Amino acid sequence: MADPLKIGIAGLGTVGASTIRLLDRRANALAASCGRAITVTAVSARSRNRDRGIPLDRYRWFDDPVELARDPGIDVFVELIGGEDGPAREAVCTALDAGKPVVTANKALLARHGIDLARRAEKAGVALNFEAAVAGGVPIIKTLREALIGNNVNRVYGILNGTCNYILTKMEAEGLSFDACLKEAQRLGYAEADPTFDIGGFDTAHKLALLTSLAFGTQINADAIHVEGIERITTEDLQAADELGYRVKLLGVATRTETGVEQRVHPTMVPKSTTIAQVNGVTNAVAVDADAVPELTLVGPGAGGEATASAVVGDIADIARGQVLAPFGRRSIDLTALPPAAMQTHKGGYYVRLSVADRPGAAAGIATRMAERGISLESIVQKHRGGRVYGGDDPNKVAGSVPVVLITYATTESDIRQALDAMMADGYIIETPQVIRIERE
Amino acid sequence: MADPLKIGIAGLGTVGASTIRLLDRRANALAASCGRAITVTAVSARSRNRDRGIPLDRYRWFDDPVELARDPGIDVFVELIGGEDGPAREAVCTALDAGKPVVTANKALLARHGIDLARRAEKAGVALNFEAAVAGGVPIIKTLREALIGNNVNRVYGILNGTCNYILTKMEAEGLSFDACLKEAQRLGYAEADPTFDIGGFDTAHKLALLTSLAFGTQINADAIHVEGIERITTEDLQAADELGYRVKLLGVATRTETGVEQRVHPTMVPKSTTIAQVNGVTNAVAVDADAVPELTLVGPGAGGEATASAVVGDIADIARGQVLAPFGRRSIDLTALPPAAMQTHKGGYYVRLSVADRPGAAAGIATRMAERGISLESIVQKHRGGRVYGGDDPNKVAGSVPVVLITYATTESDIRQALDAMMADGYIIETPQVIRIERE
Repeated sequence: MADPLKIGIAGLGTVGASTIRLLDRRANALAASCGRAITVTAVSARSRNRDRGIPLDRYRWFDDPVELARDPGIDVFVELIGGEDGPAREAVCTALDAGKPVVTANKALLARHGIDLARRAEKAGVALNFEAAVAGGVPIIKTLREALIGNNVNRVYGILNGTCNYILTKMEAEGLSFDACLKEAQRLGYAEADPTFDIGGFDTAHKLALLTSLAFGTQINADAIHVEGIERITTEDLQAADELGYRVKLLGVATRTETGVEQRVHPTMVPKSTTIAQVNGVTNAVAVDADAVPELTLVGPGAGGEATASAVVGDIADIARGQVLAPFGRRSIDLTALPPAAMQTHKGGYYVRLSVADRPGAAAGIATRMAERGISLESIVQKHRGGRVYGGDDPNKVAGSVPVVLITYATTESDIRQALDAMMADGYIIETPQVIRIERE
Repeated sequence: MADPLKIGIAGLGTVGASTIRLLDRRANALAASCGRAITVTAVSARSRNRDRGIPLDRYRWFDDPVELARDPGIDVFVELIGGEDGPAREAVCTALDAGKPVVTANKALLARHGIDLARRAEKAGVALNFEAAVAGGVPIIKTLREALIGNNVNRVYGILNGTCNYILTKMEAEGLSFDACLKEAQRLGYAEADPTFDIGGFDTAHKLALLTSLAFGTQINADAIHVEGIERITTEDLQAADELGYRVKLLGVATRTETGVEQRVHPTMVPKSTTIAQVNGVTNAVAVDADAVPELTLVGPGAGGEATASAVVGDIADIARGQVLAPFGRRSIDLTALPPAAMQTHKGGYYVRLSVADRPGAAAGIATRMAERGISLESIVQKHRGGRVYGGDDPNKVAGSVPVVLITYATTESDIRQALDAMMADGYIIETPQVIRIERE
């Protein structure tokens, strides 16, 4: 049997500690599968004394992850520090430039510097693996990079942030407000004290940027992603969605269009019958539409120490077997520039919730503005002023207004926005309309 | 760039023709990903003249697949002939013994001779890849063999036969009988003229045998699988399941138990809220419970020329990149004997539909027999003789009997069978009870 593969791990948070535990627990199976043992030999973290539930005296200690990255005593550098710049980036560059394969869970780093890192990996002829960076324990990177290589991908989309899905699921199931559910998520440790990165859609956008590159063979362009968070979703929206046969999920979606590649992150209505609509709580799901495999959906734990560590260990095992793949599926020089499709050209159905002025002609005026733009309506729900409005008194209800929910057939973002602007100018609608895009299988 | 990888394909049915098309359509992406071109150079099939919609004059022709397998002009042998013995087996053995990697979609061959073939592949130091043999375009082999290597798997289960799932879905959705739905499946080409292999559960069993080996690192033991088909499922069962919050699916299930590994194929009640319950029509799904990744579910097309060809192409690409994995995840010498767990020791909930004699004491007698075995009931549904019995007149209803549906809490197969036998002997139940096992997430 070949010499053991010597691993250096930088970052000993939950994922780092779990990685050490999994490598230990599965040592025999890993050796049997890879033809060589895998041994952690050195680690680095900010604090040496924190109790992580694992004995660290077996490993050489480095205060500086960059020193660990260049240490000749390790064969593979595992980066679990996080952050798009700073020590994580410096350490990864150092390891790659020193000819060491790298495994990382760092989506922010990859979304920002992935192509530069891929170039360094290729130059050194080593692997840069990052299964853990997207959807935790769900093997979507391997699926896109290897299993679906015989396919042209048309669309990849998914629930990529467990915090948002937990909040939306709880809002829907219990009729609680966004704020109440966010607080509960924070209490349970599913959301950070400053939750902006998750609930604003930015975490999803980082992951989507990586999926887009792998799915379409394009360079990473995180800045081209249209990002909306879930902060404005109300229980009224969820109840209206439910009545109309939909659920609301924060999706990251990348689609090949006539003009380029559309990348967007926003709350999305999905038909209840779809696999993705059934995904609840902190669970993640990624669906791929490809030409030979029209719909493939992977559902599983998107976070958590052990699930994420499972992805890290899978990546390490691939390296132990000698696998060296181009990080984004082809040489970085072969990745095409990503021609971003403008959000205004997005085509699809729309859910629109309006506060309509309670005066004669308003309904006709709205219908006219829709018709002018060639927008057809699949359904329209108007509740009486005094009636039950989506499960109770509507806190969003404006005095002198009537809530109206419209579902449109496919139209463009540009047309729907212009129609709504015109209604606002007409004075037929009283406050900023709620607009949620619909995604179909 | 390295020399092109020369492929020989034996079997030019739907999957073979689709494989040629995909390799052609994705030639550039494959070359970019694998670092070398992939070229079909020779083919073999029974009839040279059948129109397959692809020009065959570009390839050398072999009447005999065994001749193709030993031809020095090919680097990889792709077996798409089918059948557990005969030319498929002979050709695969010939190719492996000649040091050529093999890609096959042949689950019957692998379920019967997989370990022998794995030994030959290992001896020659070449790959034996078979992603297409289980769940078509769903990359469950790669997921178990590579991505989840950091996990101890506790259970793997799934909907592995599209024909059965189509029939059950249609029976449930339209309230049609098994026979009517089978005829429709045959008309649509989803079921063979002799459908026994699919509806009897044997196709599912072949696939399960492979998943078991990969999940648990055991030798293949298809003969140890408990197999029941879907022929006895009635619309009454599906409607009762629906009322009780379940759906009925034909599942293949392999579970690690205290006494060994339980492998079973049978109609199964799954809670409606699970991902697997939402899988309709010919779609396949495989779920894996592992220690680090507690629940991972892959859903996608389990059959069809292009979806299956996608798996074949993925396997070829892995070979083009130089990957050589032990076919069942570890050297065949390291695969442990599979200690089959007897079906009688199976533990789980049960759905039982009884025709209960319409006479005093019957209900008490049944309850007593259950209690004697320590079986607790989660629910019991008895409908009046004259009443509506699960959506209409029950064709299974026996004169002088009352239909009763029971759902038990977890018990053993042995206890439930003995309780039912005792009820039969007592004369409390009139015909063979319908028993469907319940599987929970």
